[in-house]
Amino acid sequence: MSNVYTPDLNRGDRIGLEEAIFCEGKSSKDLLTILSDYHENNTSCLLTRLSVSKFESLPKQIKEAMDFDPFSKTGFFGQVRQTKKDKLVAIVTAGTSDIGVAREAARTLQHAGEDSIEYDDLGVAGLWRILEKEKELQRYPVVIVVAGMDGALFGVVGGLVASPVIAVPTSVGYGAANHGHTALSVALANCAPGLLVTNIDNGYGAACAALRILRQIRG
Amino acid sequence: MSNVYTPDLNRGDRIGLEEAIFCEGKSSKDLLTILSDYHENNTSCLLTRLSVSKFESLPKQIKEAMDFDPFSKTGFFGQVRQTKKDKLVAIVTAGTSDIGVAREAARTLQHAGEDSIEYDDLGVAGLWRILEKEKELQRYPVVIVVAGMDGALFGVVGGLVASPVIAVPTSVGYGAANHGHTALSVALANCAPGLLVTNIDNGYGAACAALRILRQIRG
Amino acid sequence: MSNVYTPDLNRGDRIGLEEAIFCEGKSSKDLLTILSDYHENNTSCLLTRLSVSKFESLPKQIKEAMDFDPFSKTGFFGQVRQTKKDKLVAIVTAGTSDIGVAREAARTLQHAGEDSIEYDDLGVAGLWRILEKEKELQRYPVVIVVAGMDGALFGVVGGLVASPVIAVPTSVGYGAANHGHTALSVALANCAPGLLVTNIDNGYGAACAALRILRQIRG
Amino acid sequence: MSNVYTPDLNRGDRIGLEEAIFCEGKSSKDLLTILSDYHENNTSCLLTRLSVSKFESLPKQIKEAMDFDPFSKTGFFGQVRQTKKDKLVAIVTAGTSDIGVAREAARTLQHAGEDSIEYDDLGVAGLWRILEKEKELQRYPVVIVVAGMDGALFGVVGGLVASPVIAVPTSVGYGAANHGHTALSVALANCAPGLLVTNIDNGYGAACAALRILRQIRG
Amino acid sequence: MSNVYTPDLNRGDRIGLEEAIFCEGKSSKDLLTILSDYHENNTSCLLTRLSVSKFESLPKQIKEAMDFDPFSKTGFFGQVRQTKKDKLVAIVTAGTSDIGVAREAARTLQHAGEDSIEYDDLGVAGLWRILEKEKELQRYPVVIVVAGMDGALFGVVGGLVASPVIAVPTSVGYGAANHGHTALSVALANCAPGLLVTNIDNGYGAACAALRILRQIRG
Amino acid sequence: MSNVYTPDLNRGDRIGLEEAIFCEGKSSKDLLTILSDYHENNTSCLLTRLSVSKFESLPKQIKEAMDFDPFSKTGFFGQVRQTKKDKLVAIVTAGTSDIGVAREAARTLQHAGEDSIEYDDLGVAGLWRILEKEKELQRYPVVIVVAGMDGALFGVVGGLVASPVIAVPTSVGYGAANHGHTALSVALANCAPGLLVTNIDNGYGAACAALRILRQIRG
Amino acid sequence: MSNVYTPDLNRGDRIGLEEAIFCEGKSSKDLLTILSDYHENNTSCLLTRLSVSKFESLPKQIKEAMDFDPFSKTGFFGQVRQTKKDKLVAIVTAGTSDIGVAREAARTLQHAGEDSIEYDDLGVAGLWRILEKEKELQRYPVVIVVAGMDGALFGVVGGLVASPVIAVPTSVGYGAANHGHTALSVALANCAPGLLVTNIDNGYGAACAALRILRQIRG
Amino acid sequence: MSNVYTPDLNRGDRIGLEEAIFCEGKSSKDLLTILSDYHENNTSCLLTRLSVSKFESLPKQIKEAMDFDPFSKTGFFGQVRQTKKDKLVAIVTAGTSDIGVAREAARTLQHAGEDSIEYDDLGVAGLWRILEKEKELQRYPVVIVVAGMDGALFGVVGGLVASPVIAVPTSVGYGAANHGHTALSVALANCAPGLLVTNIDNGYGAACAALRILRQIRG
Repeated sequence: MSNVYTPDLNRGDRIGLEEAIFCEGKSSKDLLTILSDYHENNTSCLLTRLSVSKFESLPKQIKEAMDFDPFSKTGFFGQVRQTKKDKLVAIVTAGTSDIGVAREAARTLQHAGEDSIEYDDLGVAGLWRILEKEKELQRYPVVIVVAGMDGALFGVVGGLVASPVIAVPTSVGYGAANHGHTALSVALANCAPGLLVTNIDNGYGAACAALRILRQIRG
Repeated sequence: MSNVYTPDLNRGDRIGLEEAIFCEGKSSKDLLTILSDYHENNTSCLLTRLSVSKFESLPKQIKEAMDFDPFSKTGFFGQVRQTKKDKLVAIVTAGTSDIGVAREAARTLQHAGEDSIEYDDLGVAGLWRILEKEKELQRYPVVIVVAGMDGALFGVVGGLVASPVIAVPTSVGYGAANHGHTALSVALANCAPGLLVTNIDNGYGAACAALRILRQIRG
Repeated sequence: MSNVYTPDLNRGDRIGLEEAIFCEGKSSKDLLTILSDYHENNTSCLLTRLSVSKFESLPKQIKEAMDFDPFSKTGFFGQVRQTKKDKLVAIVTAGTSDIGVAREAARTLQHAGEDSIEYDDLGVAGLWRILEKEKELQRYPVVIVVAGMDGALFGVVGGLVASPVIAVPTSVGYGAANHGHTALSVALANCAPGLLVTNIDNGYGAACAALRILRQIRG
Repeated sequence: MSNVYTPDLNRGDRIGLEEAIFCEGKSSKDLLTILSDYHENNTSCLLTRLSVSKFESLPKQIKEAMDFDPFSKTGFFGQVRQTKKDKLVAIVTAGTSDIGVAREAARTLQHAGEDSIEYDDLGVAGLWRILEKEKELQRYPVVIVVAGMDGALFGVVGGLVASPVIAVPTSVGYGAANHGHTALSVALANCAPGLLVTNIDNGYGAACAALRILRQIRG
Repeated sequence: MSNVYTPDLNRGDRIGLEEAIFCEGKSSKDLLTILSDYHENNTSCLLTRLSVSKFESLPKQIKEAMDFDPFSKTGFFGQVRQTKKDKLVAIVTAGTSDIGVAREAARTLQHAGEDSIEYDDLGVAGLWRILEKEKELQRYPVVIVVAGMDGALFGVVGGLVASPVIAVPTSVGYGAANHGHTALSVALANCAPGLLVTNIDNGYGAACAALRILRQIRG
Repeated sequence: MSNVYTPDLNRGDRIGLEEAIFCEGKSSKDLLTILSDYHENNTSCLLTRLSVSKFESLPKQIKEAMDFDPFSKTGFFGQVRQTKKDKLVAIVTAGTSDIGVAREAARTLQHAGEDSIEYDDLGVAGLWRILEKEKELQRYPVVIVVAGMDGALFGVVGGLVASPVIAVPTSVGYGAANHGHTALSVALANCAPGLLVTNIDNGYGAACAALRILRQIRG
Repeated sequence: MSNVYTPDLNRGDRIGLEEAIFCEGKSSKDLLTILSDYHENNTSCLLTRLSVSKFESLPKQIKEAMDFDPFSKTGFFGQVRQTKKDKLVAIVTAGTSDIGVAREAARTLQHAGEDSIEYDDLGVAGLWRILEKEKELQRYPVVIVVAGMDGALFGVVGGLVASPVIAVPTSVGYGAANHGHTALSVALANCAPGLLVTNIDNGYGAACAALRILRQIRG
Repeated sequence: MSNVYTPDLNRGDRIGLEEAIFCEGKSSKDLLTILSDYHENNTSCLLTRLSVSKFESLPKQIKEAMDFDPFSKTGFFGQVRQTKKDKLVAIVTAGTSDIGVAREAARTLQHAGEDSIEYDDLGVAGLWRILEKEKELQRYPVVIVVAGMDGALFGVVGGLVASPVIAVPTSVGYGAANHGHTALSVALANCAPGLLVTNIDNGYGAACAALRILRQIRG
């Protein structure tokens, strides 16, 4: 019972994405075991869904080796690579409450060496806000849209830009928002053709999908 | 067991809306009993959710006394009143598949003496379509929006006009559209403030709500 | 990443409703950024779903500029306008546990300059309570009904008054009450014709809908 | 594999209710096997959920031995006992579409020797209809209420009479009526104290429950 | 806004059940307002779903006037009547975790003057436990069965006794137990004929239903 | 596009179970392509969920090579092996309507060379029926229980026998039976320890699981 | 009411995807109106979800102008462009029953001038089937995976190839497959990083998403 | 009311599994009553779902008599038997977050005298991890697979080994993982034939099922 994890060693070579550590549900003890091994082997990695309290419970030495962002609950452990100069990904949020999830996407891209630009609080209740950015958005080869509640922004962006659009529904809202399931269903049942969808609050997944696409574009 | 129904006799006086006959689930025999009584008493009424086959099963005399529209599954039984000259209600649909439900609303309004205007197939995947109508729509004291699938049109209209907006989700779509429940949840969990919502496919209910509002406006 | 929000500047002119700040899901830091801007520009606004602990976490200067009501979790930030003399909206609750949501509606109306009257604890288990108020209620051009659990009050009021009736289901109850989804479905699948429905616990939305209607009535 | 059923022979003695044959899902062949045995042994029984087409597929001799009611989909096979003179059960329906289920309850009572009285189409959208019957209903030791859609009638009756009230939700309605699940949840999450609930469309079960109660009352 | 409640004054006369105070969702302030009125008028009442912390928050004088049971979260406020000598209700639980809900039923009966007997932990995984009590249970005119998880006990008891059986599903269990919804559905979709069902964890409702039946039996 | 299927050639060697053909959702054309190949190669196989109409649509030659059972919707195509002499599996059904699913299990076992014995209609509403078989059932190394509606039989059998018990929920029932999902949840959330569960109506899967166990027992 | 549709005229220029006609829910009359206009203007288009019976109901002239494929329910109306020589998209199905949906994707790509290659029936129950194709699949810049039931193939392919992987859940399966919702949830909650998901049975949407990506790759 | 539990005394003899104490939902007081009796009678037992705080609340004497494992929330109370030398059960987890549930299974087996071996973190996103263990896993007569999120490991293992495979879905994941219901549905709707499924997070149940099978194998 000593080996609580089996690292997917060649994932980077195989699919171009390094393994990240999903911290939710892992005991602090198991998490520490993993990070200590990484520390010893001088391996760097991305941590996701790392709560402030779980981060605080780690030993000082480990914490000091980590660039932790409490808002997106992500950590960069060890060395982080330089980001490429050109920004190919735009990240749009419908409301201020969606920014934490958008930041998870931005940080995941950054950890993989891709910079991104964020356009915040452009929900369709004030439609001029997104229309004002139409031309700008059309310049990006990949657009990530982050929205909760009614998720109406997914389809509007999908109808304005020709690039692949990745929809990230968030759990923002109450009652009929159903913890993000309404925004998720909206993204899936959309009239705008060719929307791509990830799990609720899954900024990390949207970034990984963007990285898969960028790899094909950059060649 | 002879009396299968108890007419709500003074409903028109009480709440300004005559009782309509909801035909779904009623046996043809019971429906005939009711209509025969109405015929005898020379009372007129609106029938909703009357399928073609149930209509066809009625006796010739009853059918001839009815103005039946198979597309909206509505019937006008007996005399129909004149509609008022001014149109105060706009009905907008997101797609061609939503028109049957929109027609149920239009016919219900017509039966109560109110005319309406229909704007069809203005879904947000081609956003310019609704934007082109913005000024026109703002002129109507009541706007009914009929949409299935992602229901994104509800919030867009709600953000463009100041009048009361009544959202009618439809069961158009498949998979994550969930028989209209996604469009319904979208309408309810909307960022556009003050949307009013009715049941799925309930054009009749939207029209009744509009009539309640018009009664206050017309004074 | 410095601009965490994009104010919908002309919303008041466009749809007659000023933008409100939905506080749930916003970090205290982002909320403070927004309020500081408002403070600087001498702009007033309504805050909804502001928990006591988030309110308490704000700086003293900001708190003093706010009229905060913990029961409805609403805040008036900055100057508040005078309410009009005539009360056109009645707000009815089914039980004492529904009053928090009703107060959110009343406060939203008040912030927009409309006074209202509240009738509390008139659930149909003691039917005489609502019947006693029938004549009074019929005088109001808009009636908001707030109810959880079985939501039977929606249909009863809908069958007694001719005005537009706005149903606000609440999350009061347990088990089969399903966090308000039963009351919501009841409002939607109602036999009383022309009920208008908002999201669960959405007193704010009901008030906004009422304001849209009042604007048409007041002309 | 020859014995497709195991009759619960002493059920009548044990719990006061004879075994009935639930026909849904049984192959016509298996149903015929069972009825032939009953015919041979001169045993009578009640059949429920017997569709017209399945009834029609039975041999003439079996059909002639059955009093079949297509509306409630019930059959009395063999001899039927005399009903008692006094009627102790009132059955109330909210709408004409609920009568089929009410009839299943009435026929089940009749088969067990209890007569009943039916009050039809007393839904709360026209509240005076049920109020007019208040005194009459209070005379019955058991009241069965049959309602679909919003199911508001359950709580209203539960608040008016002191007898045990058995709620039978029906699958009447569409959209948010959710095939009877909304009416079911309404009955369960009710503010009227002490409502008793059965499965959707289960007139048979409501009658059986009434028979259990009547057995205690008649002593 | 001073009157936060409207007491259902003649409920006892009308339906034989005094109004109880459902404490969940009520603010401590509103609860105190109600109890102070009762105290002043020397009225006694039953409180349900009163959490320990809400009870503790009440003033000493009010607490001393209450017989509070933390396990069932019920309180008797003011004078309590004598219970009748004969016990007509048996309460059976499937497991030790269901006892809190059973106690709510027992306390509600006691407050209305009816004593009861409890049979605990008789789940069907050890079938001999319920079979051993078969004869005893058959003596009671009303049997309440309280069970969570699979709820198999409902049908077993329903098949063993002729009295009315009231099923109270509980939220005991995890995963597929679905917070009591599985036990609830089991009670409703039961093969044992004539089971009567209440909301999840609703011991109070089961007791009220029993009181309605007892009133008919005692005459 | 000519190869519509990729046979899992060594499945029998690998996991001891030959590949079966799941016919639902396959076009008649694709099904015929597969069977013609099998016919040519003189390979035998089991077909499941083969509707009568799809079977009838096959060419005569193919039909004649098949032992088709319409009740369980299974077909044996080609040669069938001899069944072993000793019966190690008991299949119990709760009601006559569950027999079709039980037969699918029996036929799957038979096709793999294992005989079984069926005990039908032993639901717990008449508890003596299953108790009478207790000793007999305890003799079988594997017991399959097939039940719909409330699924109470799963836990009762699980508490009576020491062998592995495989629960097969069926879609028998209506309303709260939820197309078999209630019986499924009951099997999963059971108090009887160590129940094993398969998909709704999945007699085939239960038989395959039994075959995996028998392989270990027979050694 | 004469204009039942509003063509999104410049969609091709705007987002690189021509408007397609979703035929489900449209009346035959409305569909004919649209196609007649297209015919007159010599415009070509793609039709999706066109059932055989609706196709058959069209006039001969229209039918002859259409390349209709009943298996994928798609039609090419008018002239079809030449497909590009290089195939950049691989389409993998888990089972033969998923091929109809895969064909919808292939036909949509073809209509837009992109060829594709299909790998059929590679579900993970026989894992060697997909492993055998690993190297081949890694060559394609876009991989579409079509799977119902357990949807395990999505994650396996996502872990083997570096290209963007588009998951299309299908409604194949029964019981716990939940009409495709289980496969959908599996795709969304996947451990393989960066999976992109579309609606259930939405081969059309997957193809449109692929076209968005290809546009970026082809530059 | 003094007897809060009814021990299933001969369960071990009857079904080969001693009764365990499910601690969730039991009050500390009731739990103590039970354990004190066991202590007095020198009976040993297994406790499941015993939270750290509930364990800590027990008296010192009771705590000292217990081997408590906080990670799996299990306790061995009193004497524990020797485990058998040969390990017949393999327990596989998909991720580190699933280990707590796996440990519950291992501890339950250990308490019943069966040792087991654990293979951790072998999820299919890095497919080589499980393939590397294929031969080893095939040696065990029973394989338990523990997985959350997409649950893809269930089918992969089911397709690789011939032994009975018991799937334990876990509540690991978020959004579309639906608290383990997605993994549960995946296990049930699986293409790999003959998977056996237990409740979400039910390591205890999986171990009990394994014990039933082992009893047949060991003879």
